[in-house]
Amino acid sequence: MSKQILRINMADLSYKYEKVPKKWSKWAGRGLTSTIVAEEVEPTCHPLGPNNKLVIAPGWVSGTPAAPSSGRTSFGGKSPLTGGIKESNSGGLSSQKIAKLGLAAIIIEGTPKDEKWYTLFLNKDGVKFESADDILGKGMYQVDEIFWKKYPNEPAIIGIGPVGEKKLSNAGISINDPENKPGRYAARGGLGAVMGARGVKALIVDDTDGPGVDIADMDLFKAGRKKLTDAIMSHDLTKPGGGLNLYGTNVLMNIVNEAGGLPTRNFSAGQFEGAAKISGEMIAEMVEKRGGGMTGHGCHPGCVIKCSNIYPDEEGNDFVSCVEYESAWAFGANCGIDDLDYVAKMIRECNDLGLDTIEAGNTVAVYMDGGALEFGDKEGALSLFDEIRKMSPLGRILGQGVEATAKAFGVHRVPTVKGQSMPAYEPRAIKGIGVTYATTPMGADHTAGYTIAPEIAGVSGKVDPLTDEGKADLSLTFQAATAFIDSTGYCLFIAFPILDIETGFAGMVESVAGVMGLKADDVDAIAMGKEVLKIEREFNTRAGFTSADDRLPEFMRYEKLPPHDVVWTMPDEDLDKVYSWID
Amino acid sequence: MSKQILRINMADLSYKYEKVPKKWSKWAGRGLTSTIVAEEVEPTCHPLGPNNKLVIAPGWVSGTPAAPSSGRTSFGGKSPLTGGIKESNSGGLSSQKIAKLGLAAIIIEGTPKDEKWYTLFLNKDGVKFESADDILGKGMYQVDEIFWKKYPNEPAIIGIGPVGEKKLSNAGISINDPENKPGRYAARGGLGAVMGARGVKALIVDDTDGPGVDIADMDLFKAGRKKLTDAIMSHDLTKPGGGLNLYGTNVLMNIVNEAGGLPTRNFSAGQFEGAAKISGEMIAEMVEKRGGGMTGHGCHPGCVIKCSNIYPDEEGNDFVSCVEYESAWAFGANCGIDDLDYVAKMIRECNDLGLDTIEAGNTVAVYMDGGALEFGDKEGALSLFDEIRKMSPLGRILGQGVEATAKAFGVHRVPTVKGQSMPAYEPRAIKGIGVTYATTPMGADHTAGYTIAPEIAGVSGKVDPLTDEGKADLSLTFQAATAFIDSTGYCLFIAFPILDIETGFAGMVESVAGVMGLKADDVDAIAMGKEVLKIEREFNTRAGFTSADDRLPEFMRYEKLPPHDVVWTMPDEDLDKVYSWID
Repeated sequence: MSKQILRINMADLSYKYEKVPKKWSKWAGRGLTSTIVAEEVEPTCHPLGPNNKLVIAPGWVSGTPAAPSSGRTSFGGKSPLTGGIKESNSGGLSSQKIAKLGLAAIIIEGTPKDEKWYTLFLNKDGVKFESADDILGKGMYQVDEIFWKKYPNEPAIIGIGPVGEKKLSNAGISINDPENKPGRYAARGGLGAVMGARGVKALIVDDTDGPGVDIADMDLFKAGRKKLTDAIMSHDLTKPGGGLNLYGTNVLMNIVNEAGGLPTRNFSAGQFEGAAKISGEMIAEMVEKRGGGMTGHGCHPGCVIKCSNIYPDEEGNDFVSCVEYESAWAFGANCGIDDLDYVAKMIRECNDLGLDTIEAGNTVAVYMDGGALEFGDKEGALSLFDEIRKMSPLGRILGQGVEATAKAFGVHRVPTVKGQSMPAYEPRAIKGIGVTYATTPMGADHTAGYTIAPEIAGVSGKVDPLTDEGKADLSLTFQAATAFIDSTGYCLFIAFPILDIETGFAGMVESVAGVMGLKADDVDAIAMGKEVLKIEREFNTRAGFTSADDRLPEFMRYEKLPPHDVVWTMPDEDLDKVYSWID
Repeated sequence: MSKQILRINMADLSYKYEKVPKKWSKWAGRGLTSTIVAEEVEPTCHPLGPNNKLVIAPGWVSGTPAAPSSGRTSFGGKSPLTGGIKESNSGGLSSQKIAKLGLAAIIIEGTPKDEKWYTLFLNKDGVKFESADDILGKGMYQVDEIFWKKYPNEPAIIGIGPVGEKKLSNAGISINDPENKPGRYAARGGLGAVMGARGVKALIVDDTDGPGVDIADMDLFKAGRKKLTDAIMSHDLTKPGGGLNLYGTNVLMNIVNEAGGLPTRNFSAGQFEGAAKISGEMIAEMVEKRGGGMTGHGCHPGCVIKCSNIYPDEEGNDFVSCVEYESAWAFGANCGIDDLDYVAKMIRECNDLGLDTIEAGNTVAVYMDGGALEFGDKEGALSLFDEIRKMSPLGRILGQGVEATAKAFGVHRVPTVKGQSMPAYEPRAIKGIGVTYATTPMGADHTAGYTIAPEIAGVSGKVDPLTDEGKADLSLTFQAATAFIDSTGYCLFIAFPILDIETGFAGMVESVAGVMGLKADDVDAIAMGKEVLKIEREFNTRAGFTSADDRLPEFMRYEKLPPHDVVWTMPDEDLDKVYSWID
């Protein structure tokens, strides 16, 4: 049975299954969400108005048997944070279940009458629209618990916290993890507010007795799957007992700090004296010492990398998953806080309230920079989440993210591109990632073209992070490869082994080709990635973006970053070169 | 003596007089502020960062003897509200005094060390930098009073209220009126925050014994002045006892309401049942009944139109100047409030705190639309200004204007263009003004191309407000003429007589030519106006604006406006035509 599109109309609480149109049939994941958004959403529409849509799509290999680390779901729409197109993807339970229901994508459109709120229950029989009155205002920990009690078969829960209900622009979309915790997020770009604008508090997905995923060429798929799995299992970063498995993404904290590229105290320095105290090594030590939590946690069934963790509280109880590098950096180094317990508490608040941790950490840092709180004031920082929970006016400011907070408090050191704040890598000290921040259609986003691999981790060769030279080309290659990987359903972390191990790359391509019924040679990953970028770029152009939006913030051109005492020197021409093949 | 540029550097508290460069010498007022901003301010700079500048310029005829209604001062910079170039001009005492000191423009640049605040005292001997510590946080009523006590000669006071000190994007710049009240504002676009970012609380201008203004051809100037004065004194709208003189700008309330173009309850209807109660006629009735205040008030020495008023409180004391049409609309019809006393109280709060009334009224209306307050709740609306005064988080939201408030409260009926909110004319019912809102480089601004003259007032012929036909050309002509008038120093209200009376137009041109030493034929008002528009438009393009920014908000395309039940139907091609001669 070929895949279908499920279109849900909240205006009249109806739904229908549609054949996947031919023009969309080559796409999955990010490629599909961006294609649908570009075709069906007017780029100049108000992101919270009735004409924006939320599009959800698993990847090509999602739901296939034993494709390694293939649990990503793509979410797309016009972003309330950037005003441009947005794809944000996440692990958790949803991807495989949606795929196994035979769905290529779910499109949620329209606005309920009388501002009513709904929970959508989706299984093989269709969609049930249920009032969400009884769960409105509740945090995602409680929501997840309620729905696993209410529904059998441990369904996937895609939901928004109170921040998404209020349509604030730092609202993410939560996906439950295998322990039914809201530890996984399509976090960036405010898509939780787009879901809120559709009046949907949660979408429950039960794939029981679903048709499953057709694999056109099982032999090719299996051959590819094996090559990819072997590569993952042999690469130093991704193998069992490798860096990611032992210490999670937060293995990076000490490394990036050493390189002088760890943004500290709202991007005013590149090294944090307390880095070791909030590092992945420290998480492992805490797990060991407290006898609870875990490292080597998988965020979805079938993950072979298992870079996630569960952080324990002082009594050794499971407290929060996951203390990622970016989250630990956001609330740690960037706020001048060197206490992992407080970092973990703030991550838990984000997971419950429905906030992107990167944007939220940057928001606290900008608030501190405005003088309202001292850098390092961990109690003060944590208390800000009470304001968001109460939806006080201060909470409404903070819930919108960095730019809104900067404007409210008169701060002009604002580390954003296209309205979205920068993750845990200082572009003045790591130039390639700065090119990605500046030029990706997504707004500042490390995952959109992770040049950190060669610039810091030495994957696919080692490149000097401090030179401008060659970084435009490097970023474009990574952006294109990423757009392809984001369409597969595979986790981006397969990039490390496939960049270093040729057969791994071939295996990824073969597994995709096997599902689609193509020859491996007919799947040109970079070319297809560039097609996706082109679709996204053109949406943004129609929305009013220009090369002026492909720039880092002004302060990075005149404020020197210690310890290297560098400013952002990348010529505008280099930035404009990245997308010159389209414009 | 030829005019000079006064350049004030707040970084080292220095100043210097510079010869006006040849390339700038043809410009004054808006033409000069926009030229200087375009040349000296990087369009992608942060508007509150160290590299934005505040430029102040009187017009060509400012400070000349008896040029009628010639008291406008232009203020320019990059706008924190729109992100584009901004010129905002005002009446009050400053224009003539700056001109009489022999200054073509004042440029304020740089940022004081250690976030210190200053008052600048300017007279014929130069600039004194004085600490502003003792007046920080004070409202403009008190500031004006303090400085007239401190300095002799009744100087002009250009200052910012608490909102500008906090660098919030709805901060205006106050100019004292002849009674030394802060009744005059370069209000729109947040230039008060740009002044705040320079660390300047107030600029005091004493023109005593200044060199005065050279007039190159006194005979031509006098001949022009007479023609223009005669036209003003004979036109029905501007003559003594004419509409503007009797009822002020608020003579429009009933007229626009009758036309179904009075935006009501956050642009959800075009007629307000309480319009008469907040009209200019009602102001005149109040002045009569209460035995205080006045109509026919002049906002600067030498005004012959005298459209300003002083509104009296219940005891007949002078309470606030001025209850303009746009202000009465903003807090009245647009908030569903039909009580002039409350409208007057809110205007006084704006004048004291340093807020643009149009943006502030729209902000209250959007806040109401978000459900936080009922439309019509005048007590609740007034109490919001206490929040701004306290600088509570809610006050910080509201002090930024409409878009920030809409985002904080999840509202998508947002009547803005380029981030600036619309004035008192509904574009769905008066199409030409919609073209101006959409396309002017200034963001939604009626004064940028006041097609209301033919569409509603029947000046220069009568045009059907409800037709799209011909409105692109009409708007461009008005935008160009306005850019010229905004450069002269004359009040825009001379437009009514000069549009209807040919000798009036000729008189305006001759008076300008006389000052500049040109032949009248060499001053092509429309061509020069277009030059100014081109400079502004190109700044915005470099700042990243595109045709997508030349659009009205999406809701106006799908929400029908009663009573005409019309939506915005202007084709995008018509909007793009307005500036097609540049792009």
